[in-house]
Amino acid sequence: MKRNISITHLSQTPMEKQKVELVERKCIGHPDSIADGVAEAISRALCREYMEECDGAVLHHNTDQGEVVAGESRPQFGGGKIIKPIYFLLTGRATRQFGDKVFATDAIAVEAARAYLRQTIPTFNMETDVIVDCRMGTGSTDLRDVFHTKKGHTAVPRANDTSFGVGHAPFSQVEQIILGLDEYIANEFRPKNPMVGYDLKLMGLRDINTITITVASAMVDRYCSGIDEYVEMKEKMAESFTQVARQYTDRKVKVEINTADIIRKKTTSVFLTVNGTSAEMGDDGSVGRGNRCNGLITPNRPMSMEATSGKNPINHIGKIYNLLSTEIAKEACQKVDGIEEMYVRLLSQIGHPIDYPHIASVQCITKRGYTFKDFAPEVEEIVNKRLENITDITRLVIDGKLKTF
Amino acid sequence: MKRNISITHLSQTPMEKQKVELVERKCIGHPDSIADGVAEAISRALCREYMEECDGAVLHHNTDQGEVVAGESRPQFGGGKIIKPIYFLLTGRATRQFGDKVFATDAIAVEAARAYLRQTIPTFNMETDVIVDCRMGTGSTDLRDVFHTKKGHTAVPRANDTSFGVGHAPFSQVEQIILGLDEYIANEFRPKNPMVGYDLKLMGLRDINTITITVASAMVDRYCSGIDEYVEMKEKMAESFTQVARQYTDRKVKVEINTADIIRKKTTSVFLTVNGTSAEMGDDGSVGRGNRCNGLITPNRPMSMEATSGKNPINHIGKIYNLLSTEIAKEACQKVDGIEEMYVRLLSQIGHPIDYPHIASVQCITKRGYTFKDFAPEVEEIVNKRLENITDITRLVIDGKLKTF
Amino acid sequence: MKRNISITHLSQTPMEKQKVELVERKCIGHPDSIADGVAEAISRALCREYMEECDGAVLHHNTDQGEVVAGESRPQFGGGKIIKPIYFLLTGRATRQFGDKVFATDAIAVEAARAYLRQTIPTFNMETDVIVDCRMGTGSTDLRDVFHTKKGHTAVPRANDTSFGVGHAPFSQVEQIILGLDEYIANEFRPKNPMVGYDLKLMGLRDINTITITVASAMVDRYCSGIDEYVEMKEKMAESFTQVARQYTDRKVKVEINTADIIRKKTTSVFLTVNGTSAEMGDDGSVGRGNRCNGLITPNRPMSMEATSGKNPINHIGKIYNLLSTEIAKEACQKVDGIEEMYVRLLSQIGHPIDYPHIASVQCITKRGYTFKDFAPEVEEIVNKRLENITDITRLVIDGKLKTF
Amino acid sequence: MKRNISITHLSQTPMEKQKVELVERKCIGHPDSIADGVAEAISRALCREYMEECDGAVLHHNTDQGEVVAGESRPQFGGGKIIKPIYFLLTGRATRQFGDKVFATDAIAVEAARAYLRQTIPTFNMETDVIVDCRMGTGSTDLRDVFHTKKGHTAVPRANDTSFGVGHAPFSQVEQIILGLDEYIANEFRPKNPMVGYDLKLMGLRDINTITITVASAMVDRYCSGIDEYVEMKEKMAESFTQVARQYTDRKVKVEINTADIIRKKTTSVFLTVNGTSAEMGDDGSVGRGNRCNGLITPNRPMSMEATSGKNPINHIGKIYNLLSTEIAKEACQKVDGIEEMYVRLLSQIGHPIDYPHIASVQCITKRGYTFKDFAPEVEEIVNKRLENITDITRLVIDGKLKTF
Repeated sequence: MKRNISITHLSQTPMEKQKVELVERKCIGHPDSIADGVAEAISRALCREYMEECDGAVLHHNTDQGEVVAGESRPQFGGGKIIKPIYFLLTGRATRQFGDKVFATDAIAVEAARAYLRQTIPTFNMETDVIVDCRMGTGSTDLRDVFHTKKGHTAVPRANDTSFGVGHAPFSQVEQIILGLDEYIANEFRPKNPMVGYDLKLMGLRDINTITITVASAMVDRYCSGIDEYVEMKEKMAESFTQVARQYTDRKVKVEINTADIIRKKTTSVFLTVNGTSAEMGDDGSVGRGNRCNGLITPNRPMSMEATSGKNPINHIGKIYNLLSTEIAKEACQKVDGIEEMYVRLLSQIGHPIDYPHIASVQCITKRGYTFKDFAPEVEEIVNKRLENITDITRLVIDGKLKTF
Repeated sequence: MKRNISITHLSQTPMEKQKVELVERKCIGHPDSIADGVAEAISRALCREYMEECDGAVLHHNTDQGEVVAGESRPQFGGGKIIKPIYFLLTGRATRQFGDKVFATDAIAVEAARAYLRQTIPTFNMETDVIVDCRMGTGSTDLRDVFHTKKGHTAVPRANDTSFGVGHAPFSQVEQIILGLDEYIANEFRPKNPMVGYDLKLMGLRDINTITITVASAMVDRYCSGIDEYVEMKEKMAESFTQVARQYTDRKVKVEINTADIIRKKTTSVFLTVNGTSAEMGDDGSVGRGNRCNGLITPNRPMSMEATSGKNPINHIGKIYNLLSTEIAKEACQKVDGIEEMYVRLLSQIGHPIDYPHIASVQCITKRGYTFKDFAPEVEEIVNKRLENITDITRLVIDGKLKTF
Repeated sequence: MKRNISITHLSQTPMEKQKVELVERKCIGHPDSIADGVAEAISRALCREYMEECDGAVLHHNTDQGEVVAGESRPQFGGGKIIKPIYFLLTGRATRQFGDKVFATDAIAVEAARAYLRQTIPTFNMETDVIVDCRMGTGSTDLRDVFHTKKGHTAVPRANDTSFGVGHAPFSQVEQIILGLDEYIANEFRPKNPMVGYDLKLMGLRDINTITITVASAMVDRYCSGIDEYVEMKEKMAESFTQVARQYTDRKVKVEINTADIIRKKTTSVFLTVNGTSAEMGDDGSVGRGNRCNGLITPNRPMSMEATSGKNPINHIGKIYNLLSTEIAKEACQKVDGIEEMYVRLLSQIGHPIDYPHIASVQCITKRGYTFKDFAPEVEEIVNKRLENITDITRLVIDGKLKTF
Repeated sequence: MKRNISITHLSQTPMEKQKVELVERKCIGHPDSIADGVAEAISRALCREYMEECDGAVLHHNTDQGEVVAGESRPQFGGGKIIKPIYFLLTGRATRQFGDKVFATDAIAVEAARAYLRQTIPTFNMETDVIVDCRMGTGSTDLRDVFHTKKGHTAVPRANDTSFGVGHAPFSQVEQIILGLDEYIANEFRPKNPMVGYDLKLMGLRDINTITITVASAMVDRYCSGIDEYVEMKEKMAESFTQVARQYTDRKVKVEINTADIIRKKTTSVFLTVNGTSAEMGDDGSVGRGNRCNGLITPNRPMSMEATSGKNPINHIGKIYNLLSTEIAKEACQKVDGIEEMYVRLLSQIGHPIDYPHIASVQCITKRGYTFKDFAPEVEEIVNKRLENITDITRLVIDGKLKTF
């Protein structure tokens, strides 16, 4: 059966040539990102348990909900304290019984959530700073949609819903800067500067040729002796981050850290926290409210509202099609010459096999000097191949090789 | 002080001329919409209380979170039953003390949520079908940001965050159809056909000149005697909805209802519910995961990830700038000749007055036969005026005159 | 089979002749009593549902737990407000599936709890003042213990546990006064004086021939215009209550109301509430912490620690044996001459039919002028008869004809 | 000021001469005992925090509530699994602010509860088997009742309520056996036989001269390879426990273990658990529903309904008077010759200093050969002394030197 793939030329000003561009990322310790991470950790733990107990098969579940209810803290230079723990409500549903097997879904969810939190935000005292509660429901698994990870099983699951996924490539300079900064902070800057917390919001604004990166960064009080050290760190961050950004652009770059700080003799109000996340003192979070599955929020680009994190990676369109769209766009832009920009949209039809979307719509902005018709067949080939092997996405997700936020 | 307003020409294929277009709406009883509605109802109730107690002033609060945890039900033709109530967790925070006043924030939130649910989904038995729990935190009000609704107060609140809002106009045919259908169902079709529930998902796909509207509609079991009546209703819906859609387009229209239904002698699986929402039996919901503030999810258009519902309407950019962007685009397209399509983005800077955004970026696709330069000044004028009167948005929200989802 | 019934003479100073006697009762609106009432209301609602759905059979359940977490209020003369609702956590377990029947256990529990609260404390605004949450588990019904309320079924359920019940008769003067006062307040005084709330603690102390009744009574603020009316009411209560008490005794009676009140010009601290229960502002409650099943707390008498309320009335010893012990003692003291005081203890053996206790131990203090041996056989006869008809207790409980607290 | 102390002679058959006696103890891992232990652990942790922060002063709090909601498990020989964690709801209230100090009451409560559970039931996997949630309220501290543990502060706190405490001595044979067994199991038998869980219910029945000890003991599945080892262990327990019991009595002793077990070829139903407590699979627990502060439930003795655990040890009568009554009885029976049995009741009057009870009533059964009048003064002396030094109780509680359940 032929797939319904539509490759069209898009006549549009490419992003880099548009006057204004906005890009945002909520880093790993932002309340919304915490919610995403916990949701995905639970889904992956359930997948592993199902596979172990059911000879490689993954059963139905969805944990793409859940709420982070902020606690209360009293940060202070040198080290403050958590007054009221952050409250995590785990929800969603998972198959608890299948044949004669019973799965410890609630216990698995709580364990996965706590393990994720411990690992991701090592400043947390897991005995005092968080409460992980669980009101997960019971799902049932339709036999036709059991996904086997072992070879020899070729049935492709059917779409859980009429829904869609979107993706684009390549990333603009600002997008690259934001993603690059996030990695730099996580892997290089924070390890050397533990004062920098886990909850950063990176906001990139390009105004023609000036890029302003506004950073809101929670600081960890125990690693900050006083206001002077705090101010020093902000300067150090601005400097280092500017250097990182410059690796991706020749445009003018400005980095601003915690612009809402008030530092006066009488009233000092800075972004100081006990553990490095605003969830400890007033900011709630929930799944699917933050980054899209490419790690960014890009109001100048098409986006899906679907939460990717926590959804089952077997037949949930909101997860699989978003991830796949992005992968397709990336691969096509890398392998095929002549594409200035590409937007991929995959639309499912509930109950139909996920490798046959209702429509796979690809829009390409053609690079100067190339002809759309020349590269269109090559793009279609990639789309077709990727759809054929759509269950690779499932495997990558289960193995934790695809980020979801 | 001059505002930083950028009006630029956008060279882009207008939506109606793009090959594929996707538009979605989650109607009032969808779990995500319920979450949105409850969040907004609470914010408005708090606003009213603050105004009454504080001589017209509105204090700080944010209730743009909250979770709908699905219950369990046993629908059956003629009337089934709710086994386990839906659980609503109200979170967020609100000012509880201001001067010597104490506000009953929790009680107000619970009452507003219950009143909203009772009114919006009248099939709910409020004594058995829902649990409204509350873990709302305490916020504090910065004196400089108290918003006075009475005359004579001219101070404009300062942005709570560095964030942005986006909006567009005019609506495409598919967008108009989806919004038109939603209204038609709510105001005309359901009142006459109570079998149709409150939780509908309307998905519009335009493939060149064919528009397919896929409707997932929860049916209310007590108003449906059996499978025949159910099937009849689906036919009636398809027919009526097609007629409504045709008012907005000359394109070919197809309407499909509950395509996942399985109706066979042995196995019948249809979208039957006790109260007309899938929240009763397996689908969780949360604030900000559904429709944008224009009532739609439009992956072909720029969108903001921010939840509009439940945020305070005083200084929360995620609410005010999204609403304002949409209003600006609507007004400009209505009043100014020559605009084919318009995208508005407003970017704030934390701590700065909200009527002076960091940048107000407007992109226009020019109608054939018009010149961008001719209408640009008029557009700027509208943007400027609207920003000047930005607190009108606050008033409209409090009065319930602006929808947020 | 002969029952193991032991009737023994007890050589002990009768209560009325002991120097000091203490008796307490927590009235209907005391947090512990609210918890008891809610627990029992749920059990009765489940019984009714099971009987209706299962042709007269009652299935297994236990709802003898549950917590009342106090809210916050701001009472003030003329009418204050509830800030934070009281939170009720319903727990326990109930059979959700039996054969092909599914029972709406959670929904029934929530409905029963709300209905009970509405009816018992009519001052509650059910939309703002209470949150009823439910974390009830699932129980299973052993076929052998299904209790049939219809005729023709003669199997007697087997004891759920090795446990016991205790009861005594007759009631002493102080006991009679406390119970009499409770009735008088509920049926006569409060209806005419709505200022008197639902949460009263009646504490009776007899010191030889002086009886002091200390009353802690929550007052309802909306029915109290100011401190003068409050003080007046206290005087009126003291007077009326004294008159009531005198109907039961010739001893000297003193009644003291809200002795902890501080009424001074500067600092006034009185027991004022919005709804007439301390649960609204700081006092938690839980099942089984208050009155024993005879309505009293009597540290001078043997007591069982078992909560009677909420336990299933089919085979739960903690409920049935406590109720039955009391009934046996009452009947024997009424019908048999010569008993000054009687203490009944019934001990079960897990897994054995409840009409054959491990031991039924009855201790009698003989009235002056009578001989123990003369009336012992008559007492044994009553005990035997009552055990034979033990399932009458079940029926009376289901019909709400036996109080449990 | 002279204390109101009443020492009276009690004419009553001493316990050992009564025909039937019942004594029960719920061991450390029984759901009600877990609730008690957690409540007391929290109170002690709060005391320590207050003392550290406030120069030795203890502030107001009460945590004598809280609910243990049972989880779900699948025990199996060799090791089963926890499906759904036990849910602990911490409630009560504690002073959060005092002067300019802020106390991390919620975080302290959660930490204390988790630490207690980890230590007390070491089989618990704290990452999967328990959820500790907290809805603790805020209390306020009356300056007059701040209790200073440092020398030089002599003010005695005032009674929080009109309430009472009761105690008795000496312990009967059955009482001694039950307490002795509990200690033996905890300190000797379980360490060598880890199959024996933490949740045991010891029920002693004396029928004239035969003492039957019925033991319900949760077994830990990971330490039990199969039904044979299970049965063997039961035999071993019966034997060892009988030997222990014989140390306290010359009466006939019978020990029966898990009498409800069904061990047949087809249906085997035994008391097997994953962690050694029934809380994991169906039995809820709550504070104050189990043992009295002497560690026993004694329906043949006067008892108080008040929960001792979790109450503040400063001015809460329900805690202090129960502990003190027991201490007084113990001391008097030890030091004074001629007392066969003693019952102590202390009644407070709200607002009055706790060292001056409304009445301290002591009833003594005189030993054959002694005269009541001879030893009464000595008893009064002890009562008076103990009341004078009543705050010693507070210190002992804070230091964990007095058991509360």
